[in-house]
Amino acid sequence: MQENQIVTSMNFSLPKWIQEELACWPTHLPSTNEQMRLAIALSRKNVEHKTGGPFGAIVIDESTGLVLSVGVNRVEHTNCSLLHAEAVALMLAQQRINSFDLGGPGMPRRKLVTSAQPCVQCFGNIHWSGIWAMAIGATKGDVETLTGFDEGPLHPNWREELRAQGLSLEEEVMRREASAVLRYYRESGGFIYQGRRSKPLG
Amino acid sequence: MQENQIVTSMNFSLPKWIQEELACWPTHLPSTNEQMRLAIALSRKNVEHKTGGPFGAIVIDESTGLVLSVGVNRVEHTNCSLLHAEAVALMLAQQRINSFDLGGPGMPRRKLVTSAQPCVQCFGNIHWSGIWAMAIGATKGDVETLTGFDEGPLHPNWREELRAQGLSLEEEVMRREASAVLRYYRESGGFIYQGRRSKPLG
Repeated sequence: MQENQIVTSMNFSLPKWIQEELACWPTHLPSTNEQMRLAIALSRKNVEHKTGGPFGAIVIDESTGLVLSVGVNRVEHTNCSLLHAEAVALMLAQQRINSFDLGGPGMPRRKLVTSAQPCVQCFGNIHWSGIWAMAIGATKGDVETLTGFDEGPLHPNWREELRAQGLSLEEEVMRREASAVLRYYRESGGFIYQGRRSKPLG
Repeated sequence: MQENQIVTSMNFSLPKWIQEELACWPTHLPSTNEQMRLAIALSRKNVEHKTGGPFGAIVIDESTGLVLSVGVNRVEHTNCSLLHAEAVALMLAQQRINSFDLGGPGMPRRKLVTSAQPCVQCFGNIHWSGIWAMAIGATKGDVETLTGFDEGPLHPNWREELRAQGLSLEEEVMRREASAVLRYYRESGGFIYQGRRSKPLG
């Protein structure tokens, strides 16, 4: 086989504006609303800078509010359908602590804070990530109605499945602010990329 | 925020033995059995070289049998719970064609060939990847019984959900050979890493 044609590695990065944006935020965000405010700010900046879809997520240490990692949707810019905001935040948090498990024995409880309800792919990512808690902004209905993005065939009992592994769940946190970014994406003519169902926003 | 503490990028690679292994295979594998033979060979080599879990996957162009990408499980070695064999193969295929969509208009139909049934996470990855077909070796039951790995809360109608988006599915392709690798992993004392349920194999 001409092995030089096979791609053997991949690199992805957060957009360059992230460092500048994070310089404006404290390292610790103790309340869920503050955490969500950062996740939503990242989702909005991602649209403003045209660096991806209208989604932001962060991973925090629950007891201290330390922001462990941040993520934004990078699908279009990295040519990778896996790089939803939640996936990026989870992967970068695991890189920071050098573990594929964010919630193993002796570790602080970690929480994923995401500007919108995770899709079918992020549900799977969350399941194996080791996080102990999740806060969600906009609902599935908000995402699908306001943008045309589709959440995919999510498990019908996804909430119960996550709770069954000990994960605690908060929904509709700052939902109005989170939804406003989805609306802004639509108004700014954002692209809906979903595999072969991709289409420009009408 | 001390932005230097935030990890802003990530890189992952296939194990070094991959290039040597692929040099022994043709660039095109026309039949599903030949394709599965490569996926299974990769799963076995990954165990032999102790570079990850007992799973291998490839993406091929369905009409020509061209091997577009290969993947093996990289969770432990990259500290990333997302890097299952299927995810790696899909991401590297997308990198090769510079598109987040493996099945857009005008593109050849692409197939994922995987040594074992995709878990809840890979189901989501597959859903957005754009592939048109999938061939599976070992079953969910084989994986869970022979290794102790858990497939997670897979959608109860996952087959119908994939077919509903036009994906064709073949199961139990070379199941015996695929299962033999799972058994070999157990006998070689492989580690079962599943977030906070991780445990050594008994």
